[in-house]
Amino acid sequence: MQTILGSVDRGLSESLEKLFELLKIPSISADPAYAHECRNAANWLKEYLTSFNFVTRICETEGHPIILAQELSATNAPHILFYGHYDVQPVDPITLWKIPPFEPCMLKDNLGQDVIHGRGSSDDKGQILTFLEACRAIYTETGQFPVRITVLLEGEEESGGEHLPAFLAEQKQHLHPDMAFICDTDMATADVPAITAMVRGLVGEEVTIYAANRDLHSGIYGNAARNPIQVLSEIITALRDDQGRVTIPEFYEGVPEIPSEIRAKWQEIGKTDAALLSPIGLKESAGEQAFNAIEQTWCRPSCEINGISGGYQGAGFKTVIPAKASAKISFRLVGHQDPIKIRKNFRDFVSALIPQDCRVEFESYGASRAGMVSLEGAILGAVCQALQDEWGCETAIVGSGGAIPVVNDLQREFGIESFLVGFANADDCIHSPNEKYNLRSFHKGIRSWVRILYALQPVKL
Amino acid sequence: MQTILGSVDRGLSESLEKLFELLKIPSISADPAYAHECRNAANWLKEYLTSFNFVTRICETEGHPIILAQELSATNAPHILFYGHYDVQPVDPITLWKIPPFEPCMLKDNLGQDVIHGRGSSDDKGQILTFLEACRAIYTETGQFPVRITVLLEGEEESGGEHLPAFLAEQKQHLHPDMAFICDTDMATADVPAITAMVRGLVGEEVTIYAANRDLHSGIYGNAARNPIQVLSEIITALRDDQGRVTIPEFYEGVPEIPSEIRAKWQEIGKTDAALLSPIGLKESAGEQAFNAIEQTWCRPSCEINGISGGYQGAGFKTVIPAKASAKISFRLVGHQDPIKIRKNFRDFVSALIPQDCRVEFESYGASRAGMVSLEGAILGAVCQALQDEWGCETAIVGSGGAIPVVNDLQREFGIESFLVGFANADDCIHSPNEKYNLRSFHKGIRSWVRILYALQPVKL
Repeated sequence: MQTILGSVDRGLSESLEKLFELLKIPSISADPAYAHECRNAANWLKEYLTSFNFVTRICETEGHPIILAQELSATNAPHILFYGHYDVQPVDPITLWKIPPFEPCMLKDNLGQDVIHGRGSSDDKGQILTFLEACRAIYTETGQFPVRITVLLEGEEESGGEHLPAFLAEQKQHLHPDMAFICDTDMATADVPAITAMVRGLVGEEVTIYAANRDLHSGIYGNAARNPIQVLSEIITALRDDQGRVTIPEFYEGVPEIPSEIRAKWQEIGKTDAALLSPIGLKESAGEQAFNAIEQTWCRPSCEINGISGGYQGAGFKTVIPAKASAKISFRLVGHQDPIKIRKNFRDFVSALIPQDCRVEFESYGASRAGMVSLEGAILGAVCQALQDEWGCETAIVGSGGAIPVVNDLQREFGIESFLVGFANADDCIHSPNEKYNLRSFHKGIRSWVRILYALQPVKL
Repeated sequence: MQTILGSVDRGLSESLEKLFELLKIPSISADPAYAHECRNAANWLKEYLTSFNFVTRICETEGHPIILAQELSATNAPHILFYGHYDVQPVDPITLWKIPPFEPCMLKDNLGQDVIHGRGSSDDKGQILTFLEACRAIYTETGQFPVRITVLLEGEEESGGEHLPAFLAEQKQHLHPDMAFICDTDMATADVPAITAMVRGLVGEEVTIYAANRDLHSGIYGNAARNPIQVLSEIITALRDDQGRVTIPEFYEGVPEIPSEIRAKWQEIGKTDAALLSPIGLKESAGEQAFNAIEQTWCRPSCEINGISGGYQGAGFKTVIPAKASAKISFRLVGHQDPIKIRKNFRDFVSALIPQDCRVEFESYGASRAGMVSLEGAILGAVCQALQDEWGCETAIVGSGGAIPVVNDLQREFGIESFLVGFANADDCIHSPNEKYNLRSFHKGIRSWVRILYALQPVKL
C-alpha cells in the first residue's frame, strides 16, 4: 500500500489535471441551457473510468444521465457502492466570484496553503475524484482492486434528484452491493476526519382541527364555542413534556444509546452548544435536557411545528373564532424508529385529545427511516482506522440532523448501510460564489480512500 | 296613563303613516349616492320631532348629520337620553325582496298576523318610532312629559359610526343625562320582553414571539433551537385551566355574580346551550364548566385566540423552524373588570413564560369596559315592571356577548348606564332582504315606552 500512496503523492499534479478537466465542464443541472454540458461531463467520466478498467455505462433517465461503472474482479472481497454526483449548482451571483467559476485554478489562502478554486471543486467533483483517483492509482500500480466496486454518479443531485429512486429500484435485481460510501460531506474540523454514521429520518404530518360549521363572531360565541386554535395549541403543548421529551407513546422505541466516548469526542472537537447555536442568535438548547445541542440534532429524535395557521392573520384585528386551525408537524427519526408506527401513534395521540365537538383530519408528508450505521460494526472500525492512519488523529463519528435522501434510497432498495466519508470543510462555500477545496483535502482524500479500500478487503460481512 | 295608552291604540294607523313616511326615505349611509336621502331623513325627523315640542337641531359632522332633540321642561324629573339611528343597510341583493325595499307595506305572515315590511322597519326606524310615537302620544294628550328627554339619532350606525364618539365628547359639557335607553335590540322571544343589561367589553392583543435570528432548517436545528410556535402554543394553553377558567392573575376581579333567578329565567325562556350552539354545529359549551353556554357568552369574561400564524402555511410541506410566531388574542370583559389592568396582567403573565432565548412583543387593539347595568337598581326595576305590565309576563334581563360601541361611548363621556330595550325579533331579517317588523312589536312597543316613561318619573337617582 505504501507503494500506492507514493504513487498518489507523485501523481498529484496529474490528479489535479484530471480534476481541472472535469471542473471546466459547467454541468449545471438546474438550468436546461446546460443540459449538453451535463452530457459532456458524463462522457468525460465514462472515458476516464474506462481508462482504469471500469466497465462503464451512461444510463439514460428522463433527466440527466446516471453513470454506472463497475470493477467486480475481486471475487470474494466485499462489494462497495460509491455514490457521488457530477452536477453542480448554478453560479449566481457571478459578480461575486474572484475567478471565473469554470476556469479552475490554484490560489493561496491566508495561511499560505494551496486551495483549489472553482464551481464543483468541493461539491462534488473534487470529492468524487478523491475516490476515483485512488482507484486509478491502485489500478495503475497493481492492475487490480482490493474490493469489488460499483461507482454510481448522479447528474441531478443539485436539482431535486427525482430520477434516482426509480433507477435504483430498476437496479435492485442486478446490483448486490454490501455497503455504500458517499463522498459529499465535511470533515469534523480541518484536521479531524469524520464519518457521518447517523442521518435522521423524517415523518411529516399536517393536522387540521375543525370545530363550528363556520367562522363565528367571538363576541356572540366567545367562551361557549370551541376554539380550534385553542384545541390545536393544547395538542402541540401536550406533544412535549417539561423535560423536552416527546410524549407520544413508544416514541423512543428504537432510539439507540450513543456510546459516551463518541459523545465526548464531539465536545472535544468543538461541537458545542455555542458552536451550533450562537450563529443563529440562541444560547440554550431547547430539546431533551439530558442531551446537549449537538446530541439533540445528531442522535436524538425531534418533534417540530413547522407551521401553524388559523383565524385572522392580516393587519389589525378581527374578533373571529375560526371554524378550523391547522399545523404542519414533523418528526426527525434516529436509529430504528419506525416511521409508520410513529405516524400511527401520533394520530392516535392527537385523536384522543380532540374534544367532542371537534374533528381532526391528517395529511401525510413523507415517512423515511433514519440512516444509521452500526457503531459496533467491523466496517466502521476499519474505515475509522484507515482515516486515522492517514490524518494522524482519531476519526470522529458524527451525525447529520437533516435527511439525505440517497441514504434512504440505498437502504430501501439494497438493504445496505451508507458510510458518509467526506473531506470538505465548513468554509468551502458550497452553493455560493468562490467555492473551493483545500489541496490538502484533495491529496489526503485520495490517500484516505486508498487506505479505506485496502482496509475493507479483509472485512468479513 | 290609561288615557294615553288608549290614544296610542286609536292612533295606530296614524303612527303607521308616520313610520311609512320615514321608511320610504332610502337613507343608506354606506353608499355616498344616498347621502342626500340621509339628509332627507334627518330633515323629516327634525320636522316630526318639532311637531311634539322637541327643540331639534341637525348637527353636522364630517359624515351624515346627527339629530339632537330635547324636551327638558320636566324639572326635577330624571333626564333620559334616547339613542337610535335613522340610517339603514344597503338592500342587495335586490332580487330577493318580496316587495320594493323602500315601498313599505303591511303583509300577513303564516299565522295570519300583520307584519310591516320594508328596509329599516326593524333596524332601526320602526324601533325608534316606538319611542317617538310614545312621546307624541304623551304630548298630544297631556301637553307635557313625565321626564326630561334628549333624543340622539345617528346617521352612520350601519357604516362604522366613526363620527359619533367625537360628537359625544363635544356634548359632554352641554348634556347631563342620568341614564340612556337604546332601542336597537331584540325581545327575549316573540312574547317575552327583554332588557339587555350586560354588554361585554373587549381587550385585543397581538403577541409575537421571536426566537432565532432567521428561519432555520428543522433538520439541522430541530430539537436544539427554540421553536416560537411551540412557545406560543404553550402560552395559549397556559391561559386557561382544565376547567375552562382563564388563569391570568386577578382576571376575575370585578366579575359580578349574576343572581340565580336571572340565570334560571334564561333557561325558562329557552336560552339553552342547544339554542345557541346547535345552529353552528356544536353540542357542548367550551368555557367555564360551572356555567352554561348562555351564561358563558352573556355574563362571563372570555379569552379567545382570534388568529395564529407562524412558519410555513402554504400547500405541501417545508421543514422550517420559523424565527417568529404570533397570535391575536381577545378578552371579553364583564361587570367591573378593568381592561387596562387585564392588559397589564396578561402581558406580565405571558412575559413570565418566555424562555431565555425568546423575546416577546405586544400590540394593543382596543380596550373597552363592559357595559353593565346595576341589577339591583331602581331604574331597572321600574323598566322591568313597565314592560311586564304591557306584555303580561316577566321581563327577561339578558346579556350581549359582543361589544356595542355606543354603550361604551355613553359610559365614557357621560358616566351613565345604558338600558337596551328593543322589540325586534330574531327572525326580522335585519341586514338581509325582506326585513320586517311585527305590527304587534310596533304597537306594543309604543305602549311599552309610554309605561316606561311614566315609570321613570318618580325614580330617585
